[in-house]
Amino acid sequence: MNQIKRVAIVGGTHGNELTGIYLVKKFERFPNAIARASFESITLLANPKAYAIGRRYVDTDLNRCFHPQDLKNAQLSNYEAIRAKEIYQTLASLPKEQTNLTIDLHTTTANMGLTIIPSTKHPFNLQLAAYLKSVNPSVKVYRWKDENNSPFLRSISELGCAIEVGAVAQGVLDARLFQQTEELIYAILDFVDAYNRGTPFPARDTFTIYQCLQTIDYPRNEDGEIHAMIHPELQFRDYEAIKPSEPMFLTFDGRVIAYQGTSTVYPVFINEAAYYEKGIAMCITQKELVLV
Amino acid sequence: MNQIKRVAIVGGTHGNELTGIYLVKKFERFPNAIARASFESITLLANPKAYAIGRRYVDTDLNRCFHPQDLKNAQLSNYEAIRAKEIYQTLASLPKEQTNLTIDLHTTTANMGLTIIPSTKHPFNLQLAAYLKSVNPSVKVYRWKDENNSPFLRSISELGCAIEVGAVAQGVLDARLFQQTEELIYAILDFVDAYNRGTPFPARDTFTIYQCLQTIDYPRNEDGEIHAMIHPELQFRDYEAIKPSEPMFLTFDGRVIAYQGTSTVYPVFINEAAYYEKGIAMCITQKELVLV
Repeated sequence: MNQIKRVAIVGGTHGNELTGIYLVKKFERFPNAIARASFESITLLANPKAYAIGRRYVDTDLNRCFHPQDLKNAQLSNYEAIRAKEIYQTLASLPKEQTNLTIDLHTTTANMGLTIIPSTKHPFNLQLAAYLKSVNPSVKVYRWKDENNSPFLRSISELGCAIEVGAVAQGVLDARLFQQTEELIYAILDFVDAYNRGTPFPARDTFTIYQCLQTIDYPRNEDGEIHAMIHPELQFRDYEAIKPSEPMFLTFDGRVIAYQGTSTVYPVFINEAAYYEKGIAMCITQKELVLV
Repeated sequence: MNQIKRVAIVGGTHGNELTGIYLVKKFERFPNAIARASFESITLLANPKAYAIGRRYVDTDLNRCFHPQDLKNAQLSNYEAIRAKEIYQTLASLPKEQTNLTIDLHTTTANMGLTIIPSTKHPFNLQLAAYLKSVNPSVKVYRWKDENNSPFLRSISELGCAIEVGAVAQGVLDARLFQQTEELIYAILDFVDAYNRGTPFPARDTFTIYQCLQTIDYPRNEDGEIHAMIHPELQFRDYEAIKPSEPMFLTFDGRVIAYQGTSTVYPVFINEAAYYEKGIAMCITQKELVLV
């Protein structure tokens, strides 16, 4: 693999996830914090208009606008579709022999702590994830179920990851999570720098990935209205095991709805505010051991 | 005082505070749950348009639209101004010799547990608050600094309160808080019913009110941008004492900003998402002992 020539730190892909936005603002004021000798660091506020109005997006979720076919589709002309094309132009513009890496900063109302979502299964990304787990053992590594044809901003470059941090409410800064996210970014930059210098950091040789198998929606009535909530025993229990027949939802009139699966799984993104409209109450994962 | 003829249970004054909205939906499906023999119970979804778009409000904060002079001002014609006039017509329409009571359901991203905000200092409201504290000792009672000329929906009637529950993110249902709020509503209805029957419930004769003294804004730069967050040691510590010189904020570059006051106070509404735009990082209260 070539040396990494540029690292892009992206905040505000969702306009109401303040941690990434204020980290980008900080790095713009203190560029030395993200400068490393062997590559260029750039920052990007991805959805400034959504940030200005305090919402996740203006017209549509920007982090679902990066399907390769959508980036080529001139018919798509709402704010986020245009913004995605602009961002793609900016971040994918390096000559072919050069390599870039993208870090996309997110928060969630689910209790996902510090979660790394590698952009692809590229060995470099897995080594990076292993290193971050060495630096901070509380780091979790998650993968979405399908990365072919991915609509996510992080898919702009093969190298890199999203950082998903929570639980934190939309529109809120949590200082502890802000600082922990900042430390992760510095660890990534140092790791890239060491790689470029030919002196890669040692890291553990195995770790666990939580691989998404499917999403589960809230129970809904015929009109599509939800009629149950996340069960209190599951709330904030991201990455913990749930076994068949254990409580998953609680209806508004107090009836327990159990998990219907046949094997133990590990739910994440439990009760993410932005996923109510997407029909996702949680993402069901299984643990996979990764050899680096 | 006359008998209470009607109790209005209002949800969705803020369209992204789901607990009250789904409680109102539940009561509309199961009206027996809120029916009591001695008065009429009605429900109201206050800001349906804001709920439909998943936001606090459409044009302006509905819960600041109930100034008596604004309700009379025909010039005010945005969505919430009109909606406030409609709600006032609906809820304040009883004949003079009859009495109504309003319960306005809210949630907050601050860790305020179950907070009662009496609409006024009317002795009935204080007896009600004392009773709710008897039923559930974790209940806190808070008062805003100035109730003359109040812009809040709860000010429609002299009797009643807002219920402010947290911490819960905007756009999220927390089942435990949903159930605890529901229990509080039933306790209020039972209390009103007992009062109407001339057999008032016994309650403790003193309790603590957290009286708001002032609000404190985030530290901001010349452009009005915040440059500090709630200090991690203060986050989620609503109703706990903060002493002069103790940490209050943390700047983005890691500098601690201490509380500048001269006496011990009790902050609430710490890091409420909707208050960033209002210039409120927290409300500073002092404890006052109330004799019922």
